[in-house]
Amino acid sequence: MKRVVIVGMGFGGLRAARGLAGKGVEVVVVDRRNFHLFQPLLYQVATASLEPEAIAYPIRAAIRDWKGIDFRLGEVTGVDFQKRRVQLKDGVLPYDYLVLAAGGATHYFGMKSIETFSFDLKSLDQSESLRNHIIESFERATIETDPEKRRALLTFVITGGGPAGVEFAGALKELIDHELSRDFPTLDMAESRVMLLEGRDALLAFLPESQRLYTKKRLEDMGIEVRFNTQVSGAEPGKILLGDGSGISACTMVWTAGVQAAPLAAELGLPRGANGRIRVREDLSIEDHPDVFAIGDIAFLEQDGRPLPMVAPVAMQGGTYVAEAVINRIKGRPASPFRYHDKGNMATIGRNSAVAYTFGMKYSGFIAWVLWLFLHLMYLVGFRNRLMVLLNWGFYYFHRAMQVRIISGSTPVGGKGCSQPQASDVRTP
Amino acid sequence: MKRVVIVGMGFGGLRAARGLAGKGVEVVVVDRRNFHLFQPLLYQVATASLEPEAIAYPIRAAIRDWKGIDFRLGEVTGVDFQKRRVQLKDGVLPYDYLVLAAGGATHYFGMKSIETFSFDLKSLDQSESLRNHIIESFERATIETDPEKRRALLTFVITGGGPAGVEFAGALKELIDHELSRDFPTLDMAESRVMLLEGRDALLAFLPESQRLYTKKRLEDMGIEVRFNTQVSGAEPGKILLGDGSGISACTMVWTAGVQAAPLAAELGLPRGANGRIRVREDLSIEDHPDVFAIGDIAFLEQDGRPLPMVAPVAMQGGTYVAEAVINRIKGRPASPFRYHDKGNMATIGRNSAVAYTFGMKYSGFIAWVLWLFLHLMYLVGFRNRLMVLLNWGFYYFHRAMQVRIISGSTPVGGKGCSQPQASDVRTP
Repeated sequence: MKRVVIVGMGFGGLRAARGLAGKGVEVVVVDRRNFHLFQPLLYQVATASLEPEAIAYPIRAAIRDWKGIDFRLGEVTGVDFQKRRVQLKDGVLPYDYLVLAAGGATHYFGMKSIETFSFDLKSLDQSESLRNHIIESFERATIETDPEKRRALLTFVITGGGPAGVEFAGALKELIDHELSRDFPTLDMAESRVMLLEGRDALLAFLPESQRLYTKKRLEDMGIEVRFNTQVSGAEPGKILLGDGSGISACTMVWTAGVQAAPLAAELGLPRGANGRIRVREDLSIEDHPDVFAIGDIAFLEQDGRPLPMVAPVAMQGGTYVAEAVINRIKGRPASPFRYHDKGNMATIGRNSAVAYTFGMKYSGFIAWVLWLFLHLMYLVGFRNRLMVLLNWGFYYFHRAMQVRIISGSTPVGGKGCSQPQASDVRTP
Repeated sequence: MKRVVIVGMGFGGLRAARGLAGKGVEVVVVDRRNFHLFQPLLYQVATASLEPEAIAYPIRAAIRDWKGIDFRLGEVTGVDFQKRRVQLKDGVLPYDYLVLAAGGATHYFGMKSIETFSFDLKSLDQSESLRNHIIESFERATIETDPEKRRALLTFVITGGGPAGVEFAGALKELIDHELSRDFPTLDMAESRVMLLEGRDALLAFLPESQRLYTKKRLEDMGIEVRFNTQVSGAEPGKILLGDGSGISACTMVWTAGVQAAPLAAELGLPRGANGRIRVREDLSIEDHPDVFAIGDIAFLEQDGRPLPMVAPVAMQGGTYVAEAVINRIKGRPASPFRYHDKGNMATIGRNSAVAYTFGMKYSGFIAWVLWLFLHLMYLVGFRNRLMVLLNWGFYYFHRAMQVRIISGSTPVGGKGCSQPQASDVRTP
């Protein structure tokens, strides 16, 4: 029986595994986490709307009823293409066919200080740390006597005007206005700022102009400061440095301004395209390695003259396609080229408000928001997670409550935010 | 206006604060966590039945509608009784009246190796780490070729036959039998053991003999090995050492065999009783410090010749009492002595099975289990938490699913369990 190894159980890997289940092949999926993560909702973990577990689904639960699929927890360090073996930190996995679906990572464009100082919205740990950090910043502000430092603690700078930046900015502002303002009655919320910085001159660049303008207006109506043509060049404790030489006093920066292929892509010695993505052929296999495929964020393929975007639908369609491609390869059948069908784009802005553009139709406001809710729920893996998320959302919608406002574990405020306060700096009530 | 400082927002502190709300005093509650923790359900976090956030309720949410109560996040390092100031790591809090409600901590009786090696069920972080560790142990067992080491990975030793030990043992066995056995079809579950060690000769010593025997029989029927008169003397990676010189090969030990006052008790220079608890007078105030009170696990008081037990109801009744005592003190009114009313005891064993002893009546099995469910739900703070827990339980009950089987963050398997495997040790499938 032919053996397929799938590296990574994100949106692409999950669909590839499902497509291969019960097809007479032996499949091992390997991931360094034991759960599939629903990344599009990480911003809700970071803003205390969802508990981390609500968007993490155990891989073994997902594959339990899929025939012929086994799971291996482990970190892939390389691939021996000659011997057809995937090298793990603690073992090896032989394969006949290999699907690389290790996803993407945040791109800091070489700016180390930003990588050190900022949070991203790519992992469950980072999102939970960000939630802890936000709430701890408010706690620290209550005892900070220096108005400058207090304002820095209450200033939140989000870099990148894509969906992650827009959605996080909107949710954070709602968290502050509806919940934290009541949790912290001694703080003057006029000292708090949420800023969204974008290097170019538009938010959600993939949407039609009217929707880009709607998004900007909605965010500004909510009280978020949107700044265009603003480059971030670095960061230091308590300060974010801009390209024009000025700075913003802030203890929190969230970086959503760049994405690249997962670090594994650079370890394999394969030809790569933009953002470090592995170049694939029309059937998602790799030149000179016909039995190795790459899908999703880690793969680079141009379609109609443009690289496929690093978004979940590309990975999902790639996963479904590659399962068929492997079976065709085994049976010696030819495969038609992969073709990505863009069903549209959307982003939520806040309560009752979103934008969506699909099949040439534009939706804004409440209808787009309901559409966003429905689609995200539909794609959430697992009945229980769907139910929990729905309940959280329902509870939030009717009670305006973001209840997961807890500071868990050890929080990196010292490292990522401003320096820790001294006893002498602190307000004695 | 008189100022009351409450140290700790466990069961006692929470009720003290509620009792003082709107009573014309200024109250500051201080806690090193920003949430109230429902400790009795930690074992369900450790066994993947509940997400950690379900049993953590933000303190600021709890006190939001209570008049005159403020919260300070901070770690108490000492008290200056002369100047009436609570010293924090990052500041001070002046007081007129002080309520010490810092709770309890695990007691290792000086056995450092056990403290290093074992998990306890006292904090949210430890319980989440334990969950991660259990699931990671099963993952590692799938690639372990040495049968000895594999059995050690699948052996779970629980020390202490009190409610925490009994409840965790039962829930862990159910997790293994109903969930993990299906998640890990390649493992032989006959290699897995759950052992409950008790130093004396009974489980749940506070219950009548018939119920103690029922509990033992139920656990044994479930397949748990119960060992009486067994002392643990130490631990090393992969091995738990017993008092008789023998050892048990195991990568997981959960220590529930001892409890003492929180470390703060030792820092205050106050007279202490057994388990390091601060001696209090009949009105829960401290000799020579009439304006300082201690309640719950941190306080030592004998009633009818026996020390009050370190359980939630003592803390709750103490909290309610102390709020009145403070008001009486301010108004110069005498206070009648504190008297703990023992309403009974209970422990759950597993699905449909619990024991309860209340007002001289004994309940076992399904009725006791429903009673346990009802009471624990009733005491859970916050509507949303109650709803989430109920849903989780309902889901589990009807689907036998323990869904939070994710390994989050960095797990301490290397430190707390067995040593990390080498690539050469590992099964190549």
